[in-house]
Amino acid sequence: MELGKSLSATVLLILCMTSSANGGNILVWYTEASHWINMKPVLETLIDRGHQVTVLTPSVSLFMKTNEPSRFRYEPFNVSFSLETIEAFMEEFLQFSIYEMNQMSYLQIYIRFMDMMKTNVQVSLKYLDGGNYDLLLADPIYPGSDLTAEILGIPLIFSLRFSIANNWERLCGQLPAPPSFVPAAMSKLTDKMNFSERVWNFVFYILQDIVLDNVFWKELDKYYSEVKGTPTSACEMMSTADIWLMRTYWDFDFPRPFLPNFKFVGGIHCRPAKPLPEDMEEFVQSSGNDGIVVFTLGSMVKNITTERANMIASALAQIPQKVLWRYRGEKPKTLGANTRISDWIPQNDLLGHPKTRAFITHGGTNGIYEAIYHGVPMVGIPMFADQPENLSHMKSKGAAVIVDFNSMKTEDLRDAVNTVINEKSSKIDNENAMRLSSMHRDRPMSARDEAVFWIEFTMRNKGAKHLRVQAHELTWYQYHSLDVLGFVITVVLLLILLSIKTCKYCFRMCCNRKRKTKAE
Amino acid sequence: MELGKSLSATVLLILCMTSSANGGNILVWYTEASHWINMKPVLETLIDRGHQVTVLTPSVSLFMKTNEPSRFRYEPFNVSFSLETIEAFMEEFLQFSIYEMNQMSYLQIYIRFMDMMKTNVQVSLKYLDGGNYDLLLADPIYPGSDLTAEILGIPLIFSLRFSIANNWERLCGQLPAPPSFVPAAMSKLTDKMNFSERVWNFVFYILQDIVLDNVFWKELDKYYSEVKGTPTSACEMMSTADIWLMRTYWDFDFPRPFLPNFKFVGGIHCRPAKPLPEDMEEFVQSSGNDGIVVFTLGSMVKNITTERANMIASALAQIPQKVLWRYRGEKPKTLGANTRISDWIPQNDLLGHPKTRAFITHGGTNGIYEAIYHGVPMVGIPMFADQPENLSHMKSKGAAVIVDFNSMKTEDLRDAVNTVINEKSSKIDNENAMRLSSMHRDRPMSARDEAVFWIEFTMRNKGAKHLRVQAHELTWYQYHSLDVLGFVITVVLLLILLSIKTCKYCFRMCCNRKRKTKAE
Repeated sequence: MELGKSLSATVLLILCMTSSANGGNILVWYTEASHWINMKPVLETLIDRGHQVTVLTPSVSLFMKTNEPSRFRYEPFNVSFSLETIEAFMEEFLQFSIYEMNQMSYLQIYIRFMDMMKTNVQVSLKYLDGGNYDLLLADPIYPGSDLTAEILGIPLIFSLRFSIANNWERLCGQLPAPPSFVPAAMSKLTDKMNFSERVWNFVFYILQDIVLDNVFWKELDKYYSEVKGTPTSACEMMSTADIWLMRTYWDFDFPRPFLPNFKFVGGIHCRPAKPLPEDMEEFVQSSGNDGIVVFTLGSMVKNITTERANMIASALAQIPQKVLWRYRGEKPKTLGANTRISDWIPQNDLLGHPKTRAFITHGGTNGIYEAIYHGVPMVGIPMFADQPENLSHMKSKGAAVIVDFNSMKTEDLRDAVNTVINEKSSKIDNENAMRLSSMHRDRPMSARDEAVFWIEFTMRNKGAKHLRVQAHELTWYQYHSLDVLGFVITVVLLLILLSIKTCKYCFRMCCNRKRKTKAE
Repeated sequence: MELGKSLSATVLLILCMTSSANGGNILVWYTEASHWINMKPVLETLIDRGHQVTVLTPSVSLFMKTNEPSRFRYEPFNVSFSLETIEAFMEEFLQFSIYEMNQMSYLQIYIRFMDMMKTNVQVSLKYLDGGNYDLLLADPIYPGSDLTAEILGIPLIFSLRFSIANNWERLCGQLPAPPSFVPAAMSKLTDKMNFSERVWNFVFYILQDIVLDNVFWKELDKYYSEVKGTPTSACEMMSTADIWLMRTYWDFDFPRPFLPNFKFVGGIHCRPAKPLPEDMEEFVQSSGNDGIVVFTLGSMVKNITTERANMIASALAQIPQKVLWRYRGEKPKTLGANTRISDWIPQNDLLGHPKTRAFITHGGTNGIYEAIYHGVPMVGIPMFADQPENLSHMKSKGAAVIVDFNSMKTEDLRDAVNTVINEKSSKIDNENAMRLSSMHRDRPMSARDEAVFWIEFTMRNKGAKHLRVQAHELTWYQYHSLDVLGFVITVVLLLILLSIKTCKYCFRMCCNRKRKTKAE
């Protein structure tokens, strides 16, 4: 106690920030695609700071490659399907999402996907036994991490973009979301809603809750109960998370109420641009004052139809900028001399290049955050999942124009690119993109440092229960004070009734006396 | 744009944190007592960082002394009352608060005080004219700062402990406060409430809102409307604040929902202990293993009755520790050899001394935060204002025992001191005090650095409107979606009615046909 006291707060803080007292042993739940891409920079930083990082990895994965050189310790577990199955499923999913967009069916696909990916927690526990982990870090998109953390008796941190209508954050994390100004995730609404939009938002929350309750939670409760051997609520298990690292910030999301254990660390992976390969730099410099446009549809979409590819190529041929297009399909016939296609592009380095004028993007969170970080305005071609939602945020902040992949014509795409580069209005202006960049950078601590701080904090303190609101201990009617309201209204009504009765009684007594007096 | 892009985020952040690009010109609204004590460390830091700080100061003040050497530029303005008036008023206020505790009358006293202290904003504006300020920093306890910021056209930052039932934060700042788990400030409740406590909390919010609306806001609206010359809502003016710096944190307050522009910077003034004066250090060292107890009733209470002083002195004489008591009254007859009284004590340096075992305190926020910072358990003797509330927080966190100033007997105080020093239970334990200290220190940034960051941020960005929730633009029934709920219920009822009517019609048609068939 005496020693503790004489340490100054400043020294303590510096110590906390520059070194980890003793390297922790962190277990990372498996994930996939952009979720894994986003998780890696934090894990790299944790290793730099002396922690050991063990990644639970399915034997079959599209993005988690245990055979590539890496500083992570992989803990593989066998899954019952082949790489071909998952690739075929993904292809089917993209085909469905891009060409037959239909939101309600998303859930069915997700359920199927989850079913396929469900780890047998009991099996993974066998692998994990004796690992002596200090913390489990998980993107809750794949279920089971909360259950595993409980069984291992270690703290749990979630890293999450969002769930549909924020169902998980609201119902399990107790994140408040008044439907009057907090648009439900995936509703494509903004925080400025007129009456009919508020009605839609309100109904959207309710409908999604009903659907998720009947499809997602019911299914998961059954699975969790099986593993634990007692009736278990999966949402209650999710609510045990110590910290929720949300992958947005107020540059991207709309300001909203939140809780002490929700940390907004959007842009974790953002970093300054590195120099380009020589031939690419040459190509970029050849664009002169017009500059360049960077174009990618993300890591998932590798191919589009020839018709769409030709349409896009012909639009790009009509703009004065040079274009770098990440595209793995056959070379479109209409490709202009100003456009260079390649299998892969150094996206972040290109977006941070001084010559970059616009970013044509499918609207994944990672790509959008790189554009925000470097202050580049966007043309959005949303494909699936959270992409339409993400781009509607950017549009409402005046940093993006959206075109529809299936219905757009050559002139639509061409005009959209010209608009984001040249227009100066409140609706779209590259000054807005620069403003978002400034908002993103101007915060007390970088997103990655903040995420790392809370991960180390949770290990140091063996949890973060003092940041947990008491709302977790209330039923829904207690939370909304409905029992209290009922009681207060009853008491008030009884008091009114009592005063009316008393008045009536007094009045009658009074009248009787008068009558008696008259009679006498 | 090109230059901006090539600056790395890290460099930008370091630049932001270590120097202020150009020194700002900060105007500070006048305040008093502990509010002023708490504001000064931030202002000192702002001056260290190259900003100019101008403090609007009334010609008569108990704590703001313009004639003392200081690095602040004072902007004095004349008030129509003398120092004697304010001293007499304060004496009367303390007498009333300590010996005739009655919460409802607090408000009347506050109104009278405010009336006395109201600056004629028009007059102060005359003084401020041409000051070219970049920001107004104010503790809203004295009204007028928001109006002045609007007239000067500059951003506004509030520094606030709380308002009664968080009326200002909730109704003007849009801070969410579900009565089911967020105890109303001054209710002395914790976040763990049973049914009857939840009823009391619910009713407390409503009653305080009604009282404040009819007494405080009505009065202030009139005053603001007079100054502006048009009907003005003072609450709407208050809602224009860019940032609310709340003087608590989760070591002191209960975790609760909050908003992006509410920053919890409790413990701004906390700093490591400096060595004690030689004779005091000698006295402290003479306590041996028993250690010392630090005792003060705060900067406002200079005197108590002889009877109470004798009772306290005799209790202190019975504990094995040595006691340092800040006391300006006559030396009590029962004073023990272990107790030393003095006009002033270096409170923070004593609380940070390794020999300190307990702190007997009136429960002011500043003192409590110094005890939290140094991990010292407390015996609370609440006197007035927020002190009972503050101490009930400490008690519920297992770091304090509370005794009543008026009714306590010698043995109550003696036992309370012995309990906080020696007991090891969940209710009270000096380990709990150490845990609070660790929570307080273990955050991404010190409270003072965080406050300074947001003040500079607001100057750099000429406001912080992107952290402002849209709830500000909604009426109360829109906020709670009552109009939407009404609409949805109406539609559902109409649909039910329509289906019943349709069924009835079909049924009748069907029956008629049958009858017809039978008749035929």
